[in-house]
Amino acid sequence: MGKGRLEAFSDAVIAIIITIMVLELKVPHGADLTALRPLIPVFFSYVLSFIFLGIYWNNHHHLLQAVRHVNGRILWANAHLLFWLSVIPFATAWMGENHFAPVPVALYGTVLLFSAIAYYILTLSLIGHHGKDSTLASALGRDLKGKISLVLYAVAIPLSFVNSWLACGLYIMVAVMWLIPDRRIERHLTSEKAR
Amino acid sequence: MGKGRLEAFSDAVIAIIITIMVLELKVPHGADLTALRPLIPVFFSYVLSFIFLGIYWNNHHHLLQAVRHVNGRILWANAHLLFWLSVIPFATAWMGENHFAPVPVALYGTVLLFSAIAYYILTLSLIGHHGKDSTLASALGRDLKGKISLVLYAVAIPLSFVNSWLACGLYIMVAVMWLIPDRRIERHLTSEKAR
Amino acid sequence: MGKGRLEAFSDAVIAIIITIMVLELKVPHGADLTALRPLIPVFFSYVLSFIFLGIYWNNHHHLLQAVRHVNGRILWANAHLLFWLSVIPFATAWMGENHFAPVPVALYGTVLLFSAIAYYILTLSLIGHHGKDSTLASALGRDLKGKISLVLYAVAIPLSFVNSWLACGLYIMVAVMWLIPDRRIERHLTSEKAR
Amino acid sequence: MGKGRLEAFSDAVIAIIITIMVLELKVPHGADLTALRPLIPVFFSYVLSFIFLGIYWNNHHHLLQAVRHVNGRILWANAHLLFWLSVIPFATAWMGENHFAPVPVALYGTVLLFSAIAYYILTLSLIGHHGKDSTLASALGRDLKGKISLVLYAVAIPLSFVNSWLACGLYIMVAVMWLIPDRRIERHLTSEKAR
Repeated sequence: MGKGRLEAFSDAVIAIIITIMVLELKVPHGADLTALRPLIPVFFSYVLSFIFLGIYWNNHHHLLQAVRHVNGRILWANAHLLFWLSVIPFATAWMGENHFAPVPVALYGTVLLFSAIAYYILTLSLIGHHGKDSTLASALGRDLKGKISLVLYAVAIPLSFVNSWLACGLYIMVAVMWLIPDRRIERHLTSEKAR
Repeated sequence: MGKGRLEAFSDAVIAIIITIMVLELKVPHGADLTALRPLIPVFFSYVLSFIFLGIYWNNHHHLLQAVRHVNGRILWANAHLLFWLSVIPFATAWMGENHFAPVPVALYGTVLLFSAIAYYILTLSLIGHHGKDSTLASALGRDLKGKISLVLYAVAIPLSFVNSWLACGLYIMVAVMWLIPDRRIERHLTSEKAR
Repeated sequence: MGKGRLEAFSDAVIAIIITIMVLELKVPHGADLTALRPLIPVFFSYVLSFIFLGIYWNNHHHLLQAVRHVNGRILWANAHLLFWLSVIPFATAWMGENHFAPVPVALYGTVLLFSAIAYYILTLSLIGHHGKDSTLASALGRDLKGKISLVLYAVAIPLSFVNSWLACGLYIMVAVMWLIPDRRIERHLTSEKAR
Repeated sequence: MGKGRLEAFSDAVIAIIITIMVLELKVPHGADLTALRPLIPVFFSYVLSFIFLGIYWNNHHHLLQAVRHVNGRILWANAHLLFWLSVIPFATAWMGENHFAPVPVALYGTVLLFSAIAYYILTLSLIGHHGKDSTLASALGRDLKGKISLVLYAVAIPLSFVNSWLACGLYIMVAVMWLIPDRRIERHLTSEKAR
């Protein structure tokens, strides 16, 4: 089974998720700069989630490049990832509108944690289908970044109740870590070809 | 006529339907966990519909793989399916916001029933175009799952008025039955190649 | 310049237009059947517009099949068509929520008229690019259906102020006329190949 | 790394941005023509932004045609462009609903300015990847139009506070300048082939 439609469907869903978030930037009634002030936390949370969804699209793009074929299990592992990503706009809006209060910040981290777990499951189901000795498996390697992210989310969620800004700091740290795109697969594919 | 744009259009419509449903998860005003409580039934109905739309996308994906070419009739049979799927977000929100009251649960089942009938019509128009002896026709076979689904929906709709939770149980039963992806076509295509 | 991205972009825009219309089916507060009654005209106008957008997608699909390459002028003629189609959800909702009152019905017809003119301009710019003797030009032929549609819209718009249901009847007549897909191009392409 | 998914993702995001803007055309309660009057500035700002997004899609389409392959840096330069484009619906609605008041008009220009800068950065990262002597680099040339646009936005933003209609005039001037599609790349590719 080809991977074309899986990519197309995932692209469309992520594109819609990333774009409908902007609908939470509700148009204010006043026409001066002070009318924009209440939107600052909403805008900041939008920027953060835009970056996270950009990271997921980017990594999904890289991951699928080494994929040859997909099966039903992989389609569902992918749908499961898309489900958690689709909850991000809700968590983003709740966090932004409540000025980064503890519970919304913890929920935001929980959604990020489940998204990361879903991505990990997708990776496992791809490796399971392609074999442990495949280009894909060796290219993904130990996936250190993925594991560090899981730990940082797991720390940030309880930390939200102590200081929600520190938790946000951890989310930003994860984003910065991933903003450097995942060159492992690219590099591996290049070195494969070189042989 | 190629099937590429039919797939692309269907992917886009299903991706949008699945994603705009999340807009019904209205951001609550409070910032504590109790503010989320009224959202629980809405979230549960969202999860259920996400799974149903995932099943339709999955089965659509499998179905179209055995398709060689399409005609005007097939385009309209497909649009008819997309129409009923597009009503799912409305039925989902009504059911969730009314805490699974009888009439909304019955309407939800009715929309699922019409979607299933539309899918069946699409299958028929594809077989009509490819011939009863085609790979497609023999791969689909008797379509037992499809027929059981129709029966379960037809039972669940009147049952909603007796006990709406039992009706929901039947919907979940249908979803679970389909979550195991439809390997008939895949298997058949593989055995065709093997010959 | 290839036509691939033009098709993909048009598919995405039409898919979104067709799907966001359903957002106008606002979830009612009551949980019984009477709560759905005010939605009946909104639902009927949704069905009508879904069919019109389906027709445009269908015809666009057929039209682009005979196209070999596109230029800047064609891209803009296509964007112009998408613009008018994008106003359909607004006109649909206004007509449905006002129970097919004269002015909204006239506006709906006006948007359909401008969409039809935009489609005609797109056809002209495609013929201009491919030549009057191209497969495309001869396949489109005299485009009788397109011309009848323009006349029917032009009659329906003033008629709305006399009797808005008669105007709606004309819109339905146009839809029915087009529901039979445009086989001219298909037939022509087939006969071209046969030679 | 291929450019296919980058194009598909950008198409989807721009298609959604262009289409959700129409959701700001809130359906009025009255059913006569006077009910539409308050929507005129909102409609006008919608038309303006539709044209700007059409221009970006058009230029993006042309730009990517000369591209051979992409890397992580380009993916992020592209996401950065899509981010600023995604803010356009908000700026459009705020400007339209406030009848082109100074601050919203200035904000609209600011979003256009940042979009233009993001497009410029994308161009640079593409040239950086393909080399200064590539077809892409020589086809883009000095990019006079891009530079004039940046200057006009930079003039229009402070001008909004003096006379917001003059600022809008400058935005329209930029749009008109770009409506003539960017034939530089097309022409260059053609002359390349001719050699």
